[in-house]
Amino acid sequence: MATTRPIRSTMMPVHLSLNHLLDRAGQLFASNEIVSRLPDKSLRRHNYGAFYARTRKLGQALLDLGLQPGDRVATLCWNHHAHLECYFGIPAAGGVMHTLNLRLAPDEIAWIANDAKDRFLVVDDVLLPLLAQFQGQCGFEKIIVFPFSSAPVAAPFLNYETLLDQADGNKFAYVAHHEDDAVSMCYTSGTTGKPKGVVYSHRSTVLHTLVGCLGDCWGLRGADVVMPVTPMFHANSWGMPYGAVMTGCKLVFPGPHLHPDDLLDLMQLEPPTLSLGVPTIWMSLIQTYEASLHTQPGRWKLPAGMRSLVGGAAVPEALIRAFDKHGIWIQQGWGMTETSPLATVSYTKSEFIHADADERYRRAAMAGVPVPLVDIRMRGDDGTDAPWDGQAVGEIQVRGPFITGSYHEVPVSEDKFSADGWLRTGDVASMDAHGFVRITDRTKDLIKSGGEWISSVDLENALMGHADVAEAAVIAIPDPKWSERPLACVVAKPGKTLDFAALNAHLLANGFAKWQLPERYEGIATVPRTSTGKFYKLKLREMFPA
Amino acid sequence: MATTRPIRSTMMPVHLSLNHLLDRAGQLFASNEIVSRLPDKSLRRHNYGAFYARTRKLGQALLDLGLQPGDRVATLCWNHHAHLECYFGIPAAGGVMHTLNLRLAPDEIAWIANDAKDRFLVVDDVLLPLLAQFQGQCGFEKIIVFPFSSAPVAAPFLNYETLLDQADGNKFAYVAHHEDDAVSMCYTSGTTGKPKGVVYSHRSTVLHTLVGCLGDCWGLRGADVVMPVTPMFHANSWGMPYGAVMTGCKLVFPGPHLHPDDLLDLMQLEPPTLSLGVPTIWMSLIQTYEASLHTQPGRWKLPAGMRSLVGGAAVPEALIRAFDKHGIWIQQGWGMTETSPLATVSYTKSEFIHADADERYRRAAMAGVPVPLVDIRMRGDDGTDAPWDGQAVGEIQVRGPFITGSYHEVPVSEDKFSADGWLRTGDVASMDAHGFVRITDRTKDLIKSGGEWISSVDLENALMGHADVAEAAVIAIPDPKWSERPLACVVAKPGKTLDFAALNAHLLANGFAKWQLPERYEGIATVPRTSTGKFYKLKLREMFPA
Repeated sequence: MATTRPIRSTMMPVHLSLNHLLDRAGQLFASNEIVSRLPDKSLRRHNYGAFYARTRKLGQALLDLGLQPGDRVATLCWNHHAHLECYFGIPAAGGVMHTLNLRLAPDEIAWIANDAKDRFLVVDDVLLPLLAQFQGQCGFEKIIVFPFSSAPVAAPFLNYETLLDQADGNKFAYVAHHEDDAVSMCYTSGTTGKPKGVVYSHRSTVLHTLVGCLGDCWGLRGADVVMPVTPMFHANSWGMPYGAVMTGCKLVFPGPHLHPDDLLDLMQLEPPTLSLGVPTIWMSLIQTYEASLHTQPGRWKLPAGMRSLVGGAAVPEALIRAFDKHGIWIQQGWGMTETSPLATVSYTKSEFIHADADERYRRAAMAGVPVPLVDIRMRGDDGTDAPWDGQAVGEIQVRGPFITGSYHEVPVSEDKFSADGWLRTGDVASMDAHGFVRITDRTKDLIKSGGEWISSVDLENALMGHADVAEAAVIAIPDPKWSERPLACVVAKPGKTLDFAALNAHLLANGFAKWQLPERYEGIATVPRTSTGKFYKLKLREMFPA
Repeated sequence: MATTRPIRSTMMPVHLSLNHLLDRAGQLFASNEIVSRLPDKSLRRHNYGAFYARTRKLGQALLDLGLQPGDRVATLCWNHHAHLECYFGIPAAGGVMHTLNLRLAPDEIAWIANDAKDRFLVVDDVLLPLLAQFQGQCGFEKIIVFPFSSAPVAAPFLNYETLLDQADGNKFAYVAHHEDDAVSMCYTSGTTGKPKGVVYSHRSTVLHTLVGCLGDCWGLRGADVVMPVTPMFHANSWGMPYGAVMTGCKLVFPGPHLHPDDLLDLMQLEPPTLSLGVPTIWMSLIQTYEASLHTQPGRWKLPAGMRSLVGGAAVPEALIRAFDKHGIWIQQGWGMTETSPLATVSYTKSEFIHADADERYRRAAMAGVPVPLVDIRMRGDDGTDAPWDGQAVGEIQVRGPFITGSYHEVPVSEDKFSADGWLRTGDVASMDAHGFVRITDRTKDLIKSGGEWISSVDLENALMGHADVAEAAVIAIPDPKWSERPLACVVAKPGKTLDFAALNAHLLANGFAKWQLPERYEGIATVPRTSTGKFYKLKLREMFPA
């Protein structure tokens, strides 16, 4: 019998698009609230209906200013409703949103803006003093000031609200695009070398949003109330703003007020069901909250049943246990700017539903399981993949439709990408038979002692499990005999004195071998961090050169 | 300042693929169970690890038999583990799975297999008597018999299990593909005209799977236990098998045993957290269950907290209330073979979380809210879109990456597709300001009485809310004065006698105007149904020509 081959799919050739998500929010979720905390700490409320109308006006305003397809529009903004408008309005007009990291040194921000060739800039009025420190180094054609504090905006700056008032939203039509066209870009934090740009597309963003919202990832539903503490300039607040717009869930933006007192205050006013941020934030928050139980009892309640997504750095098991005592479950994710960022997530797999608490905590403290659409392998030095036995380690390499295959205008190099096109993450991990990834170290943070590897992350987590320790960071120091040995830099909890012999005993009790114990301890006041909240080990190495 | 445009996305050009989902299941969910009920009612258990290995062997076996890319492999199977293997193994080998509907007349199955040019066939041994009725009309090159009942398989038939035993799974390599390549095809049920083929792609299937699994759609998680009662030959069991493999949730397949007693028995053995099927199934099941409370108390328990996805035909509010009394929430979806099939879903939107029970039931009885990636409009006869006011109606037209833009080897016609490329569904509906679609009728089932439309669906639902009525179907009958008038065909509950005057009073009490009441009633023993469980109004019109 003759067959006709190949058969053609009859599906519509419809491109994935952020504009679909924007239309959806305007049509289906018009009455759902978006709350922003202003510089004076008051709350501004509007809803997805207003968001939709304002975002289309922003699109029209950018076209009126001469935006051309593919032009970069930088943002220098805190987390708030107008920044969300930029997330959708800039791509709607054919532009590429480039979120500048306001925590970087002014010179570095300037370098990044110039590397991206940012044409326009949207900046919070409260950040104009920061802009003044590098504006002269950049060539922004138009600077649009968002009057976040309601201060007057002086020429030659353009006023964001005036632009919206003058734009005809009804006239606006989405700029035609392909799903592979760029919508946003972020720069890697770059603890080594120059920052590098990662450019996301409509396609990658929509796919990442669908995956992130799944039940075993963020589990986002329209009935959620989300408080994104992760800055919108850190890997797009991990993509959560896109998920919120797709599901129509209520958003509560903290604005510039990220101090634990402020976050706890905001949680009383607008209790979230889901929050997200780096471990540092939650460590400070739980310490502040627990201290308040004695010093100011009744001032705050933690939102019962809240889920908390934590990522950006390893989450110590002690932190997960501390929150669980208060009915808040911390869900850890792992990823990087290069992975949009969600690559793995720790959730209670069906085989662990009935596991005991210790097992659940242990798994919650791992990086977790690869999310759909992400392929993962642990590649050893010998070019073969580590077996999934929970023991063997290798460099995590990933591949998928929302993972970067190159950096903006940088030639592809073999230290960043494998010969067969996988991203080399630089993180070292094992994976067990259940698919749980456990990160043992950054490649460059592994300590090679006498031909054996010591995981600085394992030491740090164990030390942070001791009652007297607030934080601990472990680095390698050169050693004539062993090549490298661990140095533990430890921050004591308030009112506690560090007893290094007791810490060693604690480590031995937690299964470390004697040769794995720190060669030396240093008590420090605080662990230096990068702008994204990671331990800044380069600085520690400068502090303790040998 | 000079800009470089357009900027290129740096994302990897990775194609969406069912093979990724298969690899994922094998790697991450190896120990999670897949249970199938065999013809003798015993349970067969294996897991995703075995599924992965067997599916790859199936792929190799098909290649060994000479399968070429794009070749159609038909299935004539109940819901069970081997059918799931076909879902992934046929596309893995580059083939296109074509699920034949075993409920159709033999001549019609033959017509469809010939239209699709099916080259191979996988058939359950218990369905060989059905095959014998049409095999002579078709030209299957290879017929692979799955020994579902463990009966011996005689030549020239090939034995599915023997083929797997002989295939070298380690040798198998996925056949290279583009994401737009076909993976499966289904034929529309075709109450009018010839059945037409819809061909799904890797891309459309992966996107539909991601959307279906979202929290506000199926809310599928790995910890779920899913019982797909919807046949795998009805729009791919609504796509649930793909979602199960992506999330790794436990599957409980009912095999050929779909009688309410059998389903209730299976629910005692393997309590599901999620089940799916057409309203008829659930109507029989709740009647059987409620009768058993008196006749065989304690024989069955309904699985507490189970969610039940119901679709394929309008879900009467009375059915939703009946299940809710037992702690089971029915979630209605609307779609069709052409839409993969999920297009709208009814869920508790945030604005109705605190609504009273009546409002929640009322909304649960609607088709629901468009899912992500689906654009929807209600197009009126005048070519303009009905406003979203909950009153104005129009034909539902949809557009999106998992909606068909044509039919297999059929020229695109304007009665099926709008000039601007949207699918014309033939369903008539209103949409309110919250985005809830309420289907008032199939275009051809609307009753035009004196220049006003009467919704047969509204009448049916109201009649089925009466205590004496098991089922009701309303059709139009010609009327010299009013053009058309409603005829209600009503099935009484066991032991009840129908009082048509009382039914009219019930309708008036439920807000119907006097002119909207049925012109005539007919008591019938059962409502004729199509092979997919929809009311077969064509048959009713033949029974009651005027």
